[in-house]
Amino acid sequence: MHEGLEELKIRLGEISDLRSTSALLDWDQMVMMPPAGASVRAHRQATLERVAHERFTNDRIGELVSDLADVESSLPYDSDDASLIRVTRRDWEKARRIPVELAARLTQTASEAMEAWVSARAANDYSAFRPWLDRQLELKQEYIACFEPAADPYDHLLDDFEPGTSAEEVAAVFARLKEVLVPMIAEVSSVGDGGGLGHGPFPEAGQRSIGLAAMTAFGFDTDSFRLDTTVHPFCSAFGISDIRVTTRYQEDDLESLFSCMHEIGHGLYERGVSPSLERTPLAQGCYSGLHESQSRLWENIVGRSLPFCRWLHPQLVATFPEALGRFSVERFHRAVNRVEPSFIRVDADEVTYGMHIILRFELERELIAGTLSTADLPDAWNTRFEEYLGLKVPEDRLGVLQDVHWSCGYFGYFPTYQLGNVMSVQIWEAAQAALPGLEERFEQGDFSALGTWLRENLYSLGRKLTPKETFARVAGGPIDPEPYLRYLQSKHGVA
Amino acid sequence: MHEGLEELKIRLGEISDLRSTSALLDWDQMVMMPPAGASVRAHRQATLERVAHERFTNDRIGELVSDLADVESSLPYDSDDASLIRVTRRDWEKARRIPVELAARLTQTASEAMEAWVSARAANDYSAFRPWLDRQLELKQEYIACFEPAADPYDHLLDDFEPGTSAEEVAAVFARLKEVLVPMIAEVSSVGDGGGLGHGPFPEAGQRSIGLAAMTAFGFDTDSFRLDTTVHPFCSAFGISDIRVTTRYQEDDLESLFSCMHEIGHGLYERGVSPSLERTPLAQGCYSGLHESQSRLWENIVGRSLPFCRWLHPQLVATFPEALGRFSVERFHRAVNRVEPSFIRVDADEVTYGMHIILRFELERELIAGTLSTADLPDAWNTRFEEYLGLKVPEDRLGVLQDVHWSCGYFGYFPTYQLGNVMSVQIWEAAQAALPGLEERFEQGDFSALGTWLRENLYSLGRKLTPKETFARVAGGPIDPEPYLRYLQSKHGVA
Repeated sequence: MHEGLEELKIRLGEISDLRSTSALLDWDQMVMMPPAGASVRAHRQATLERVAHERFTNDRIGELVSDLADVESSLPYDSDDASLIRVTRRDWEKARRIPVELAARLTQTASEAMEAWVSARAANDYSAFRPWLDRQLELKQEYIACFEPAADPYDHLLDDFEPGTSAEEVAAVFARLKEVLVPMIAEVSSVGDGGGLGHGPFPEAGQRSIGLAAMTAFGFDTDSFRLDTTVHPFCSAFGISDIRVTTRYQEDDLESLFSCMHEIGHGLYERGVSPSLERTPLAQGCYSGLHESQSRLWENIVGRSLPFCRWLHPQLVATFPEALGRFSVERFHRAVNRVEPSFIRVDADEVTYGMHIILRFELERELIAGTLSTADLPDAWNTRFEEYLGLKVPEDRLGVLQDVHWSCGYFGYFPTYQLGNVMSVQIWEAAQAALPGLEERFEQGDFSALGTWLRENLYSLGRKLTPKETFARVAGGPIDPEPYLRYLQSKHGVA
Repeated sequence: MHEGLEELKIRLGEISDLRSTSALLDWDQMVMMPPAGASVRAHRQATLERVAHERFTNDRIGELVSDLADVESSLPYDSDDASLIRVTRRDWEKARRIPVELAARLTQTASEAMEAWVSARAANDYSAFRPWLDRQLELKQEYIACFEPAADPYDHLLDDFEPGTSAEEVAAVFARLKEVLVPMIAEVSSVGDGGGLGHGPFPEAGQRSIGLAAMTAFGFDTDSFRLDTTVHPFCSAFGISDIRVTTRYQEDDLESLFSCMHEIGHGLYERGVSPSLERTPLAQGCYSGLHESQSRLWENIVGRSLPFCRWLHPQLVATFPEALGRFSVERFHRAVNRVEPSFIRVDADEVTYGMHIILRFELERELIAGTLSTADLPDAWNTRFEEYLGLKVPEDRLGVLQDVHWSCGYFGYFPTYQLGNVMSVQIWEAAQAALPGLEERFEQGDFSALGTWLRENLYSLGRKLTPKETFARVAGGPIDPEPYLRYLQSKHGVA
């Protein structure tokens, strides 16, 4: 191997070790740690991150990727090594633009503002959170100023989560969605028709076994995965063969089943990365939009499909005879696809979800542009919420205070959730075209053809290519809202 | 604060973060990790250890402790800051003597030799393990050669686990123990009298609740501790308020109860370290012997005492009515104190345990001195075993191949187990002298006075003083085998 390439891989391997360990500290804190461990844990975390950051932004990484330009151009664009050099150069140049001192303030403020948000939300007190939001917006301006001016300053924030996609492109996709979704929501929503799943009881042990049954059918195995319980479900990977999924259980609903199918979608993506990329910065899914496309594909397109319901229905009825005995498979399928506007994004159904996101994207883009002030934010939220979803927001806890993202400084993250939904349908259609009879296999509980196709055409690439390049490979073209809209219209019987 | 001292604390805080995180990687691997995570986990571990080692052996640490000599001498000897400077200087000077390349070979060989040992033990094939033992002994000679010559080369190995104690001192204590224990074992052992606890059944859930009941009475709480299941029980601390205890359950015995009481002894020591030492190298128990003295004190002196049995007995009978319903408290107490020579050290009772250790200490000291070869080791083991414990070893799996320690290069570790037993009785007698009526409180399930006294007089000191200094503070004098021998004689009715 070329000497410089070998050195680069050794250095990046160590950084991968430090970052993966830092992720393990997070997982442990949320899943395992006794509560009194929190104070010293914050120091452990900060040190791991600082050491990884120092090692990555070291001059020597820049020298190596610069010296390796010839090696890179001698190799195929999508080879592991050319991709490693190219992606590392981009990451390094970006990381070097952020002064260490600013990075530290970003981390510190995120942690303090998140605590303030937790209290403010509990107290339904936007005014207590507003100074922290202002502080975050100031920091975001400092962050944006580290880069060459872009068409829209928001582009720099999007770049952290969906590099290569501009605010204008997002706005164009969202404008088309809005055009169709707002009237569609008014048409198909079924407020108060009692068409849900009822209130159980769904005992926790049964939920866990049903969640594991669905995940196992999708590709979960105890050799490489584990499932635990947390307050907020998430998925974390500490290696291509070490994936941790979490969920939560409430005895009066079946949300854990859908949360399991959502998180295993993230998990299968990480599990499917090519083993040749292990211990490199490419050993992970390709940014937020594509990652979310996979959680949504498994949760919604597969997990809320009639063929899937046909397979799972006997197990569900056997597990929860009291709560689901009277549900035919068709009724169960209708219940889990019910459309009803509601205040909380994470509880939203497939149709209304998009408008929750579009609302947030519009507001945060205006906050960053300076055309909306934090003083006017709650009113702007509430006015637009009624316009898009037909509901009057009764309190900020159910409105502007509901999400953690802004407190952590995650501006630019929200739109990727909805881009993921849009992409998920395009990827699904490509899979269907490549694999005839795909849905029929779901009725037999056979999801392996889909899993294999996704691994070969998407997951294995890791972070070698850009999100747009990766998406074009798997979906055969650029992002397009029409397949997504047709999917929703067809599923919900809209002409 | 003095500038150099502040810098030293910042640097040592980061090293504490890295080392504690490395310990968390170990815990996670043994308790939580899906099996396929192992291969990349080894790299994560190696990187964390290497980065911590590099940062600690950095020239700057040496400069700082050298510059801080005046600060040190201006402060009381046992103050946190003087102790930090003094202990760091000793640790740094020792660590700097080991070339990085040798340290890497020691780690690498330990991991390979441990794997070889696992297979060799399973196959009962000493010849397959012997080359690895030779390799470890060669490495130990290289390690010893890094230091100024000592009276006995074995002293340098002891220094890793019990600094300040010489092989000659250990040998003197052990000679006295041997004199009393060998005839005592012949006198009090009760082979085949059926005087044990029977074979249950002891369902796992009941064992877990009884283990937690005992540990909670000793000081376990869910705010700072957790209990999990592993193949080999251990205790690990990732902060003064984040302690993880593990045990294992077999339905036909109650070993988990004693393993819980043993591990919580280690845990209470770590939990009792003064919070002012958090994130320093002093925030841990004071080496192996004192640590073991605490696991043994809680497991054996408290946990096998009649007053303790009187408290736990009703709960035990209620939890395991089928298995223990016919056991009076006296019979239960006799059963858990039964003496019977057996082959496996970790299953040995309080009286025979010492001879298992003395045997290993003598053999490893001879191996290091070169007066015993690995070719002759199994014979030497078996001959001495029969002499000390009256049993003929039928196969190496039950003899020389039973322990993991030598495969990992842990020469010098075994004697600290027995020094711990000896010290535990001296500490116990000091506690009894200070706290009249101590044992009577056990019958009411009140162990708080003992816990508080141990925290104040031992645990809070952490690693500020040497083991000998620490022991003298808590026990009032140097190590002495007589109280331990009197304790065993009195407990087992020997004149």
